[in-house]
Amino acid sequence: MISTLVLNRTQKKFTTNRDHKRISDLRENTENVLWVDVENPSPEEFLILQEEFGFHHLAIEDCQHSHQRPKIEDFHGYYFIVLYSAELTEDNELELNEVNIFLGTNYVVTAHRNPIKALARGEQLWRNWTDIAEQGAGLLAYLMIDAVVDEYFPVLDNISDQMDDVEDALFSNNDTQDIESIFRLKKQLLQLRRTAAPLRDVFNILLRREQPVFSREVQYYFQNIFDHLIRVADQIDNLRDLLGSTMDVYLSIQSNRMNMVMKRLTALSTILMSAALVSGIYGMNFVRIPELQWHNGYFYALGLMATISIALLIFFRWIKWL
Amino acid sequence: MISTLVLNRTQKKFTTNRDHKRISDLRENTENVLWVDVENPSPEEFLILQEEFGFHHLAIEDCQHSHQRPKIEDFHGYYFIVLYSAELTEDNELELNEVNIFLGTNYVVTAHRNPIKALARGEQLWRNWTDIAEQGAGLLAYLMIDAVVDEYFPVLDNISDQMDDVEDALFSNNDTQDIESIFRLKKQLLQLRRTAAPLRDVFNILLRREQPVFSREVQYYFQNIFDHLIRVADQIDNLRDLLGSTMDVYLSIQSNRMNMVMKRLTALSTILMSAALVSGIYGMNFVRIPELQWHNGYFYALGLMATISIALLIFFRWIKWL
Amino acid sequence: MISTLVLNRTQKKFTTNRDHKRISDLRENTENVLWVDVENPSPEEFLILQEEFGFHHLAIEDCQHSHQRPKIEDFHGYYFIVLYSAELTEDNELELNEVNIFLGTNYVVTAHRNPIKALARGEQLWRNWTDIAEQGAGLLAYLMIDAVVDEYFPVLDNISDQMDDVEDALFSNNDTQDIESIFRLKKQLLQLRRTAAPLRDVFNILLRREQPVFSREVQYYFQNIFDHLIRVADQIDNLRDLLGSTMDVYLSIQSNRMNMVMKRLTALSTILMSAALVSGIYGMNFVRIPELQWHNGYFYALGLMATISIALLIFFRWIKWL
Amino acid sequence: MISTLVLNRTQKKFTTNRDHKRISDLRENTENVLWVDVENPSPEEFLILQEEFGFHHLAIEDCQHSHQRPKIEDFHGYYFIVLYSAELTEDNELELNEVNIFLGTNYVVTAHRNPIKALARGEQLWRNWTDIAEQGAGLLAYLMIDAVVDEYFPVLDNISDQMDDVEDALFSNNDTQDIESIFRLKKQLLQLRRTAAPLRDVFNILLRREQPVFSREVQYYFQNIFDHLIRVADQIDNLRDLLGSTMDVYLSIQSNRMNMVMKRLTALSTILMSAALVSGIYGMNFVRIPELQWHNGYFYALGLMATISIALLIFFRWIKWL
Amino acid sequence: MISTLVLNRTQKKFTTNRDHKRISDLRENTENVLWVDVENPSPEEFLILQEEFGFHHLAIEDCQHSHQRPKIEDFHGYYFIVLYSAELTEDNELELNEVNIFLGTNYVVTAHRNPIKALARGEQLWRNWTDIAEQGAGLLAYLMIDAVVDEYFPVLDNISDQMDDVEDALFSNNDTQDIESIFRLKKQLLQLRRTAAPLRDVFNILLRREQPVFSREVQYYFQNIFDHLIRVADQIDNLRDLLGSTMDVYLSIQSNRMNMVMKRLTALSTILMSAALVSGIYGMNFVRIPELQWHNGYFYALGLMATISIALLIFFRWIKWL
Repeated sequence: MISTLVLNRTQKKFTTNRDHKRISDLRENTENVLWVDVENPSPEEFLILQEEFGFHHLAIEDCQHSHQRPKIEDFHGYYFIVLYSAELTEDNELELNEVNIFLGTNYVVTAHRNPIKALARGEQLWRNWTDIAEQGAGLLAYLMIDAVVDEYFPVLDNISDQMDDVEDALFSNNDTQDIESIFRLKKQLLQLRRTAAPLRDVFNILLRREQPVFSREVQYYFQNIFDHLIRVADQIDNLRDLLGSTMDVYLSIQSNRMNMVMKRLTALSTILMSAALVSGIYGMNFVRIPELQWHNGYFYALGLMATISIALLIFFRWIKWL
Repeated sequence: MISTLVLNRTQKKFTTNRDHKRISDLRENTENVLWVDVENPSPEEFLILQEEFGFHHLAIEDCQHSHQRPKIEDFHGYYFIVLYSAELTEDNELELNEVNIFLGTNYVVTAHRNPIKALARGEQLWRNWTDIAEQGAGLLAYLMIDAVVDEYFPVLDNISDQMDDVEDALFSNNDTQDIESIFRLKKQLLQLRRTAAPLRDVFNILLRREQPVFSREVQYYFQNIFDHLIRVADQIDNLRDLLGSTMDVYLSIQSNRMNMVMKRLTALSTILMSAALVSGIYGMNFVRIPELQWHNGYFYALGLMATISIALLIFFRWIKWL
Repeated sequence: MISTLVLNRTQKKFTTNRDHKRISDLRENTENVLWVDVENPSPEEFLILQEEFGFHHLAIEDCQHSHQRPKIEDFHGYYFIVLYSAELTEDNELELNEVNIFLGTNYVVTAHRNPIKALARGEQLWRNWTDIAEQGAGLLAYLMIDAVVDEYFPVLDNISDQMDDVEDALFSNNDTQDIESIFRLKKQLLQLRRTAAPLRDVFNILLRREQPVFSREVQYYFQNIFDHLIRVADQIDNLRDLLGSTMDVYLSIQSNRMNMVMKRLTALSTILMSAALVSGIYGMNFVRIPELQWHNGYFYALGLMATISIALLIFFRWIKWL
Repeated sequence: MISTLVLNRTQKKFTTNRDHKRISDLRENTENVLWVDVENPSPEEFLILQEEFGFHHLAIEDCQHSHQRPKIEDFHGYYFIVLYSAELTEDNELELNEVNIFLGTNYVVTAHRNPIKALARGEQLWRNWTDIAEQGAGLLAYLMIDAVVDEYFPVLDNISDQMDDVEDALFSNNDTQDIESIFRLKKQLLQLRRTAAPLRDVFNILLRREQPVFSREVQYYFQNIFDHLIRVADQIDNLRDLLGSTMDVYLSIQSNRMNMVMKRLTALSTILMSAALVSGIYGMNFVRIPELQWHNGYFYALGLMATISIALLIFFRWIKWL
Repeated sequence: MISTLVLNRTQKKFTTNRDHKRISDLRENTENVLWVDVENPSPEEFLILQEEFGFHHLAIEDCQHSHQRPKIEDFHGYYFIVLYSAELTEDNELELNEVNIFLGTNYVVTAHRNPIKALARGEQLWRNWTDIAEQGAGLLAYLMIDAVVDEYFPVLDNISDQMDDVEDALFSNNDTQDIESIFRLKKQLLQLRRTAAPLRDVFNILLRREQPVFSREVQYYFQNIFDHLIRVADQIDNLRDLLGSTMDVYLSIQSNRMNMVMKRLTALSTILMSAALVSGIYGMNFVRIPELQWHNGYFYALGLMATISIALLIFFRWIKWL
């Protein structure tokens, strides 16, 4: 499904275009800025894109086959950008959606399989942008890309919150599901890094070039996106680092618990075996065992057992083995 | 075994050449594009290559001795490229086959020991390529290399699936073969990385040069291969990273299990020793042990043992030690 | 709250300005050096900044939204710098405060939410600076930034002291809170690194540029800040490294302790079971057990138990299992 | 001991020179290529080198003090190269020998303490080189260096074989010497990396220079050495990586074995204590224990013990604890 | 305490200067080379330095505050170098002393708090240098810096020897102090790296500059220092790497020992409980237990216990559990 929104900069008016064949005419008017959004595109719609904009078939193929790497490619006349929007579903599953962007002199084409909320937010900002002098494909691309990149922050905050939960669980209770949570979070961070880090690297190269690719104004905006991407990548690395430490802490707490179990085993065995030894002694069949003849010998024996047991109990409690 | 396929660009016709001595004549016609495939080459066939194309003896030696590193060497007039095709056999053994490629102005020579399926696929795409303007040695090399590189993706998907299996096995059952699987997968990823990562680095250098080595069109295609190589290398690194986490999880689960065993040992010892203590007490030979005289003293003792045992059992179950 | 301090270099006099609308007039006099400090700024105050200095709205937005990355941005006419001051509260919680700095030809604007002690120290140094030839926005920015950066050293020293405490605790006593301390310190170092390392990298790029950005004199000062930032970052890395080793030592000591517990369990069980075996033997009901008839058999048996127990005790002490 | 071999390129003849004072005369004839080999040099022989070739005293000092880092130094007129030959002795001890090479316009000087087999191989190849046009100091240096570098491959293959043995031993039997083998191999790899990696880095810098240092032909040869050095360094890194995994596997197998021991302890204790409990019960002295009066009560009790023991045995076997 | 040594190159004579006010006169004679050594300098002496040489106050401040990072700063007219001398005290404590060096056109100023043995060695070499053509501030700086850097090698050799001792102790005996030694060595290596690695990096930048900073001859000497610094840094990294492996080995040996303890516990419990079971059986009170009536029943029972115990002992020895 192709939908086209045209801004005429002299008229300061947004119009929706329905006739896909007119797109190349609209493009020719340099006062126009076009946003073409293509959702879940059919092969025919790709053909329209190829004809109206003259996109290289390698770029079109990359749109068709999903699971591309995030990247920016310079096709001498337009840029082809691949990035991913990130969302957490309600049961904390990570959902990544590929967004393909073509950025030309006066148009931006966004192609994607599933509906992307960020693009709607970008459109809103575009429509409300007051400074007409800044209006152009660069600004439009900035608004769209930045809307997508900004979605990473709530996702990362959510993951960070989950990590705090795991950590609290670690230090307080006995839950053996910790390790699965840690592993799941680790996988999510790995996925996020795979989508954010390469984009950061490409923006870095793009912005550090000797001859600036964009006008100074757009350069500021793209610098801003780059800045957000660095923050995203840094935060991911920090969370990964922290998760590594959490794993270490987990292993150390497990080891602590095992120490505790061992100590209890030692303490309990010692107490019970000591009491049993007393009973064993008075179960011997010697002809003369004075205590056996005592009238309250039995209670004396029970008392002895209790005394030994309690003494050991206190001792083991004192050295914190119980 | 040398086989030569010639495309005449003006006649748009493919012909198979059988006379190896004619190769240098065919090369001289700039309208021709040659693909020379050399399978399991004999020393004589290497001599033919050296004579007909004038390849440097160091490159020829690299073809003869296998186990070269993936690389691209510029011999001022042609490029010498070494890469590896990857396949998984039916019992999940990784099979890597070296492919040597010479890329000249209007020819591509592929030399390899074993038959390579990817080259056949590349040939198919070449024969069906409709845009005659793009036809050239660059396109041909692109099709061949890309066909080889594309083979890595199913291999990596397979490894990824195996890792999911290992992971599921980890979290569900008790299988002690996990560690061998993890180790085997790790070795396979190491091998794959050894063949993919150096090639990516070389392509990177090749494509970032100030003066472009290839025409803009071919540059796009080689950019595409580079892109695939980055994806391959990224995926390998991701899988390795994940495998590292899996190993950590494995160790942690082992440690958990040991904790569990220790707790059970403690619980069982405590129960049995407590019951034994009761029997020990009533085995003492004191002259006056009131319970011993009770008519149902024996059953009372059994009951006491049972009571203590069951109470401890319930306690240990409650604290999840049993 | 905006407060403005103006130094007139010809008159060598500091004056406080109260009329925010006059700031742009003051700026025009090139003999003036302005320091504008904005604490917990209201939207209106941001508007004043934007009007009087013409700051880019992206920079203003970065001031408004906290949690930016430390960075230096060149806005062609002024620099926008984000950094963090660091402090440890009394209960060793790390407190990071964002400071935004605009550095223009003859003014420095500092914007921050909370009061920053370092800025007051920087002002003091500025007022007391005797060499009027060096006075300028560069020097002022240096004094402010350096005052902020210098605050990291006592924080790091404090963390280092805490690490020494943890380490001493590790090698001497039995405290199980070690792991929580290590984890808390690790998180603090991670936070500090997130604020110090990016700034160091940006200064590095700034100072290594072919065409120097600052005058030679200011360059020396900024080199000095850079030097301090490297020291901060190095020290953080060293502490992290050491903390990693401390973690390893902790795990190894835990493992040692478990070994010790196991050895004690083995020793105690062996001693008690050996004594119990003796009592078991003389509890057998054979018709003829010579010792049972001995007059002092019972004491002989007790002596035997004691002998065996003490012998084992000495043995286990000798092999250091007890 | 100095020995000099001279190739006269016009006469295509090798001659051995005995008069060390003539070396500078031979050098002056540009048609000559000299190979001067200095084995276990005396201070006087170093003086000869310094006088005849004018080598810098820092380079001479580096020859005299062994344990230099592998390196290439440009002394404006000649290169000074330090590298190491590698060999495994029969009992798998690694032996590294330093080789110092001076490469001038038409001479190569090799200085070393112990006899180096690789140099003899290099000489053989030099004498048999048919293409007189390529003959020069560059080719000679290539042959010598390559002969030394090629010695690393059999050493690495040997280490790789030893690692396979260790790995097989790990997965099959119980050998506790594994850890010492792993550690010894790790140390050998560390030593090899210390000699191979720096040389690779230096060659990299040398070959990537804007203005080529060597003629194109020699460049190819040095590219070839660089290629071998990369392979050596890659293989070392791979083996180190694999050894790290082997260490992990070792720890995990140790942990598995401990689990197994614990399970056996638990199973054996439970069985023996259960049987003992039965005997304890029938050792009680109650006046009325019906079973005690049974004619075959004793055998019933033994049967009960056997039944319980066997049932537990089967149970523990079933859950694979025995 | 300031002491000045002046070499007049035309007179080839060393003279000691006592009048600090004359230093600037001596400096003006370009035939003079000055070495000014300042030990434990007072504020007045710093003032003298600042007046006589015109050093920047930032450099003077760095001299006054110790704990600077090793660095080289270019003050356009002279270099300011900070480095550390390293020594091991008799009880193997690492002692690092800061040395500040100013290198100007014809003077070298060395400032330090404590006496530095290396500087005396450097002076000795300077006085004995025969080649007057090379004499200059560059050579003097080289001799001083190299003397300081060369002190690292015996320190590293000592640490390496200590590591060998730790390793031997690990594989042979039972010493639980290993972990403290490993940790202490790790901290020393960390300290050494903090002083050596930054200096290496700075030298690297200094020597790789397009326009050489020093004359070719001095460049050789500084290249030589750089070379030593790389060796120091490499050796530190190697020792750290090895120490990491030693730590792994330590953990693995601990784990092995725990396995051993567990096995012994299992073996001892099984033996003692088996014997106890026999005694328990013959302690039962059944009316008819045939063995009880045997004349030598008691000895038969003792024999049975011994037989079972010895059989189990042999068995456990055979499977190496005892």
